Amino acid sequence: MRLRLTPRDTTFFDLFAAQAIHLVTGANLLGEMLGADRSTRKEIGKRIADAEHEADDATHSIMRRLNQTFVTPFDRDDIYTLASSLDDCMDFMEEAADLIVLYKVDALPARVSDQVQVLQRAAELTAEAMPRLRSMDSLSEYWVEVNRLENQADKIHRKLLAQLFDEVTDPIQLMKVKEIVEKLEDAADAFEKVANTVETIALKES
Amino acid sequence: MRLRLTPRDTTFFDLFAAQAIHLVTGANLLGEMLGADRSTRKEIGKRIADAEHEADDATHSIMRRLNQTFVTPFDRDDIYTLASSLDDCMDFMEEAADLIVLYKVDALPARVSDQVQVLQRAAELTAEAMPRLRSMDSLSEYWVEVNRLENQADKIHRKLLAQLFDEVTDPIQLMKVKEIVEKLEDAADAFEKVANTVETIALKES
Amino acid sequence: MRLRLTPRDTTFFDLFAAQAIHLVTGANLLGEMLGADRSTRKEIGKRIADAEHEADDATHSIMRRLNQTFVTPFDRDDIYTLASSLDDCMDFMEEAADLIVLYKVDALPARVSDQVQVLQRAAELTAEAMPRLRSMDSLSEYWVEVNRLENQADKIHRKLLAQLFDEVTDPIQLMKVKEIVEKLEDAADAFEKVANTVETIALKES
Repeated sequence: MRLRLTPRDTTFFDLFAAQAIHLVTGANLLGEMLGADRSTRKEIGKRIADAEHEADDATHSIMRRLNQTFVTPFDRDDIYTLASSLDDCMDFMEEAADLIVLYKVDALPARVSDQVQVLQRAAELTAEAMPRLRSMDSLSEYWVEVNRLENQADKIHRKLLAQLFDEVTDPIQLMKVKEIVEKLEDAADAFEKVANTVETIALKES
Repeated sequence: MRLRLTPRDTTFFDLFAAQAIHLVTGANLLGEMLGADRSTRKEIGKRIADAEHEADDATHSIMRRLNQTFVTPFDRDDIYTLASSLDDCMDFMEEAADLIVLYKVDALPARVSDQVQVLQRAAELTAEAMPRLRSMDSLSEYWVEVNRLENQADKIHRKLLAQLFDEVTDPIQLMKVKEIVEKLEDAADAFEKVANTVETIALKES
Repeated sequence: MRLRLTPRDTTFFDLFAAQAIHLVTGANLLGEMLGADRSTRKEIGKRIADAEHEADDATHSIMRRLNQTFVTPFDRDDIYTLASSLDDCMDFMEEAADLIVLYKVDALPARVSDQVQVLQRAAELTAEAMPRLRSMDSLSEYWVEVNRLENQADKIHRKLLAQLFDEVTDPIQLMKVKEIVEKLEDAADAFEKVANTVETIALKES
């Protein structure tokens, strides 16, 4: 790794770490929501919306700092992509939670819990990896594992789709569950995009 | 603000202003379409398609100039993102209008008019703001207001979704209206993206 | 055209050409799939998935090289966008194929074959154009023709949508075919994005 001769703004690392912690909160609340009854779901939905607002503030802080900082710890574009992708993870999880409440979907297939468990694991790994951006230490395990998780999420998603079309006969119920399941798949894709951006950053630094 | 010592191509400002004026035309025609009968809707749809073609030409002019200009008034990436986002606003409005005609949807919920009114207001604000990019004058009011409008659009959208699933029992009718409503929400998001790009540009200049 | 005084990494051209050849394979297999029975479709689906994996590897090679190369044959951003858009073409075609198998859709409207024929032609043109990036020779015919094809695809797509909503009365069947048709339209859009990126690169070089 190159020796740093120019002082570089380190607070980006803190901001990314903060942003990622909201993802853990969001993913765990989503897991809680699945097991809850309808009125508790509404209350959990509000807490996920709060987490989303805080993540949004964290994103804006990164963007503002990026626009006003001359020397950045890595490529401006990569910082922008990393912050946006972290934000997308949260947005998709919040949208899924919101639809579960809005559509009053009582029973969701068991595979939806599998999807959310993958998101919880991806969120944890992401939160653990963000502070390591400073030292670029053992990041490859993180992105390899998140890519593996995304493949797993994709398989669950395709099986879920086949199951929905095989089993659900009410088209409106089908539309509701399909949309929720797709938001969760979008969230898994967003976690993969975060991991790929970290890989890009690490390759440039190596 | 920094003093400009290098001459900078000013026609970008004119091109952005021209592009935004098509958005006002498009949004207003969309409003007219909602109140019209089926045959008038078809005719209005053609005028929206014309506006979309002209906006497309404006976008291509910006992109061509961008690829052939060495010194640009602000970051190349920001010019690209601004032109693309303005183009997206128009595309989504045109797609919504096209679906209204194509799906022969006669009655749309009242909240769809609320969505379109938000778009009309966002289009006006955007068209007023574009010429001010030259002086960077009082742009913050613009982006704050468009962000507020997008929040409002998002709330209308979520209420509309809940209403559709509560009230519409014909699944095919539901699919049609839902898709139209989502294109309008995509348009509101695109207006927010324009405003966020303007904010980025302004922050870099300040 | 400018004289090159700096040596530039030429293998990017080979990598783009390799990536585009997988698109021809994918589009042709998709065409075969439409005429096949259900069990053959499954087998063809696996071959499309294989082509998608190989295209994915080609994309990763380009990205890795991009991150580790100092002097690139054209703008880094354009290389990134070109590789991503080529990858998107494949992904959407593979998703469409996967849904045809997953949803066990037996009969698809004739216009779906028209959509796929447009994709086959776009894939061929793209594969022929990629090696010409080296000399920048007669690329304008390519991007003009792919833009024309995308317009044609768009028209077919809109007619297909109108036809589906006019003719299909089973909402679940409608949802299935609509989703497949939209993935094919996404693929056509991705081919246009590839052509627009090539145009951008050529304009900068001229």
